[in-house]
Amino acid sequence: MKTVEVLFTPADFATLAHRDLRETVCVVIDVLRATSTIVTALAHGADAVIPVPEISAALAWRAQQPDVLLAGERDGLRIRAAQTGGVDFDFGNSPREFTAAKVRGKTIVTTTTNGTRALHACDGARAVLAASFLNLTATVVQLGRLAPENLLLVCSGTGNQAALEDTLCAGALCHQLGHAAEAALADSAIIAREIFRAAQSDLLAAASRSANARRLLANPDLRDDVAFCLREDVFAVVAEQGRDGAVRAAQLSGGGGF
Amino acid sequence: MKTVEVLFTPADFATLAHRDLRETVCVVIDVLRATSTIVTALAHGADAVIPVPEISAALAWRAQQPDVLLAGERDGLRIRAAQTGGVDFDFGNSPREFTAAKVRGKTIVTTTTNGTRALHACDGARAVLAASFLNLTATVVQLGRLAPENLLLVCSGTGNQAALEDTLCAGALCHQLGHAAEAALADSAIIAREIFRAAQSDLLAAASRSANARRLLANPDLRDDVAFCLREDVFAVVAEQGRDGAVRAAQLSGGGGF
Repeated sequence: MKTVEVLFTPADFATLAHRDLRETVCVVIDVLRATSTIVTALAHGADAVIPVPEISAALAWRAQQPDVLLAGERDGLRIRAAQTGGVDFDFGNSPREFTAAKVRGKTIVTTTTNGTRALHACDGARAVLAASFLNLTATVVQLGRLAPENLLLVCSGTGNQAALEDTLCAGALCHQLGHAAEAALADSAIIAREIFRAAQSDLLAAASRSANARRLLANPDLRDDVAFCLREDVFAVVAEQGRDGAVRAAQLSGGGGF
Repeated sequence: MKTVEVLFTPADFATLAHRDLRETVCVVIDVLRATSTIVTALAHGADAVIPVPEISAALAWRAQQPDVLLAGERDGLRIRAAQTGGVDFDFGNSPREFTAAKVRGKTIVTTTTNGTRALHACDGARAVLAASFLNLTATVVQLGRLAPENLLLVCSGTGNQAALEDTLCAGALCHQLGHAAEAALADSAIIAREIFRAAQSDLLAAASRSANARRLLANPDLRDDVAFCLREDVFAVVAEQGRDGAVRAAQLSGGGGF
């Protein structure tokens, strides 16, 4: 690897439109909760997860393909028929809802704002992975096999700002890359890695201070999502975005066991 | 204080053009080396330091005011007459050059790229301070007296990326704000503060891993700048940018000793 860089905010990843990403592998991170939800759904057997920015885009998918499941919430509540002109969404955005019984073999269209924007910003990259703490090591193994020239860790952020939990996850990835990547780390990657190292003895406590975590922890129905999403290596699944925008469970490049 | 936020990159501070900064105090940080140089020059008695983005802008100042001193370098070397059509610059960009004997009572025009861009990005703010490790506590005292609604710590960065040493300095400021600011810290401010806390036992070693520091350390004439700029609280001077763009030593708001 020649460069490992972390982008902290939407303003940062908006600059990717001007960069040649053909030799770059991008890893998009939205710990609370878009990429944690995607990874959970794929690990539980979903065929594909299609992130879209708006409710209207999700409804357009349903109109074309009546068997897709819809996921999304506004203000912490699952989207209901009254908001959509008659369509009840099947899920909110809590990863705990995406059980094998509900998702196996299904295509899920999910509304997220920052997560979708971050995934789109990586258009043109050699590969785009969706990562979370839940599939950290699987992602690192895949990166080792892809052996990209340049690695870009794209934190989705909170609104227009940096999100602590995404930075921690980017740092955990940099930490796992180990000594081989040391000389390639940009300052941004050093910042993320050192944040993770300082927090790793109690990751949940550290991440719980973030704006996103505090918002979720204040909601009795959503508070357990924080602990759910802060667990490392629950799923040995690699989530890769295809050219069609859908995220699917990827074969580990180069084959072999895991 | 209601909010304390850190901007890590030029892409982040470019978004300030769309924000109402009237209730915001901005602190611009360019540890290696623009704000360290400005603070050193003011501490040694310079009347004003005027940051400009290009050599041509510095020459325009000299043409209008023949007594201004010019500072700047390209590729680590002081700017020479051959590059300017006949004008030798008086200083490079090393803060160690700005001795009292040379700067007392003088106005200095200095070319920097990121530092100037960051200062301009804060146009319209209630106040704009230039900070470095060298005047950390003086800056914090001034912030306490200004008691801004919103505090924005603007890291100048390296090229288009985050700079570790600027993030460490922003974190040191957040650390010194103490418990009173705790609830106001955005995720970005928590990230910066935790980076600083993890590094503070050997700040020089931590900052020496940054891209800027490595570039300076590789140059025998400039390597001592790194240790010079990583010292805390050498100067009890507050550096404030006026509406005219010039940075001057400010009276501590509200009077009193220091």
